[in-house]
Amino acid sequence: MIAMPFHYPNGQPYSRPSDPNGHKRAKVQQVRFDNRGMSLEEEINESNQFYLAHDLAVIYKKPIPIQIVKVDYPRRSAAVIKEAYFRQASTTDYNGVYAGYYLDFEAKETKNKTSFPLKNFHQHQIEHLRHCLKQNGICFVIMRFVTLERLFVYPATPLIRAWDAQAKAGAKSIPLHTIEVEGFEVHYGLNPRIPYLTAVDQLIHYSESQKGVHYGKQ
Amino acid sequence: MIAMPFHYPNGQPYSRPSDPNGHKRAKVQQVRFDNRGMSLEEEINESNQFYLAHDLAVIYKKPIPIQIVKVDYPRRSAAVIKEAYFRQASTTDYNGVYAGYYLDFEAKETKNKTSFPLKNFHQHQIEHLRHCLKQNGICFVIMRFVTLERLFVYPATPLIRAWDAQAKAGAKSIPLHTIEVEGFEVHYGLNPRIPYLTAVDQLIHYSESQKGVHYGKQ
Repeated sequence: MIAMPFHYPNGQPYSRPSDPNGHKRAKVQQVRFDNRGMSLEEEINESNQFYLAHDLAVIYKKPIPIQIVKVDYPRRSAAVIKEAYFRQASTTDYNGVYAGYYLDFEAKETKNKTSFPLKNFHQHQIEHLRHCLKQNGICFVIMRFVTLERLFVYPATPLIRAWDAQAKAGAKSIPLHTIEVEGFEVHYGLNPRIPYLTAVDQLIHYSESQKGVHYGKQ
Repeated sequence: MIAMPFHYPNGQPYSRPSDPNGHKRAKVQQVRFDNRGMSLEEEINESNQFYLAHDLAVIYKKPIPIQIVKVDYPRRSAAVIKEAYFRQASTTDYNGVYAGYYLDFEAKETKNKTSFPLKNFHQHQIEHLRHCLKQNGICFVIMRFVTLERLFVYPATPLIRAWDAQAKAGAKSIPLHTIEVEGFEVHYGLNPRIPYLTAVDQLIHYSESQKGVHYGKQ
């Protein structure tokens, strides 16, 4: 057994090291150095707080699903979970409501410079996005090219198309030039840091022009 | 320290005993006996699985928010959380998408027979519902009168009105006859067990007749 204690005095959500949802600890920490101390997740959470405070949208990251096995109840003190396990998530990480629209998305990043690898996604996320699209949700991924410092809102429809093609010996990644065409670029701001609702507006506008179906641009 | 082990071989979400969100263990277990082995939460989760399987809606209960402090990584085995704490939730328990609508709700029950006590709710839930209403979400509570075996979809707008009135020395509970007038009754079914989308349809219809504002019936 290797014991590794973690302390998060700032109250930030814990990014778990190696878990069923495929996050990697080393990667997350690397990104923090790259990007002046904030991970993509932290930047999105901060942007969501801005949107909430200004009554622009109500979007939250879902808590990490945990299977609790044992809890201690110290007298005159908070309950302590003493044994628990990470569980496989059924959904994407983020959802909420924006001007009457249901938003549902993942946030993912790559160090690649020319394409976004599909291995960043998991089957359960794709299936969840598929289900939400059927209910006319606004579904997408916030993709970050770490090295290029470029961000995109990439619609779920072309993502699912690429995922399904991959299963039939298709490409294992989505080329950047495809993302430039089918996605909506987001430029870093001061407040909110990631003003992704501007790109979501474009996605909604485009989707509604396509007979109510939420496609990508192409 | 009192150590209490819990085992959930059926993979059901853990209902924590005493936590910042105010659930009570004894109550949940009592309900299980009352209602042929299923809690209100389990019945709603099962109904949501039915709705998902039939492409009618995508609604999930959010995981319990946990602050993780210490994790062990046994060799050749899954990571074990060895120290963690329950955190205060920021939102309601359930949300998702239904035919293009964002749904957001809590599920609560009482043994009272003539009114629903407001102490079942917490400030953060009320504030979250308030925010979601501003974004035109469909917001409500599934209320269960355990002894009467009656269920209602009660809109967030009159709930918030009662909550705010309570702060100004108003009533500490909502009378059943008010809930009968302002809410939409749900009758237990076989599959789904709690067909609450029928009541949600009525709420949406009513809300849209009120100039796009999601009020209760009165």
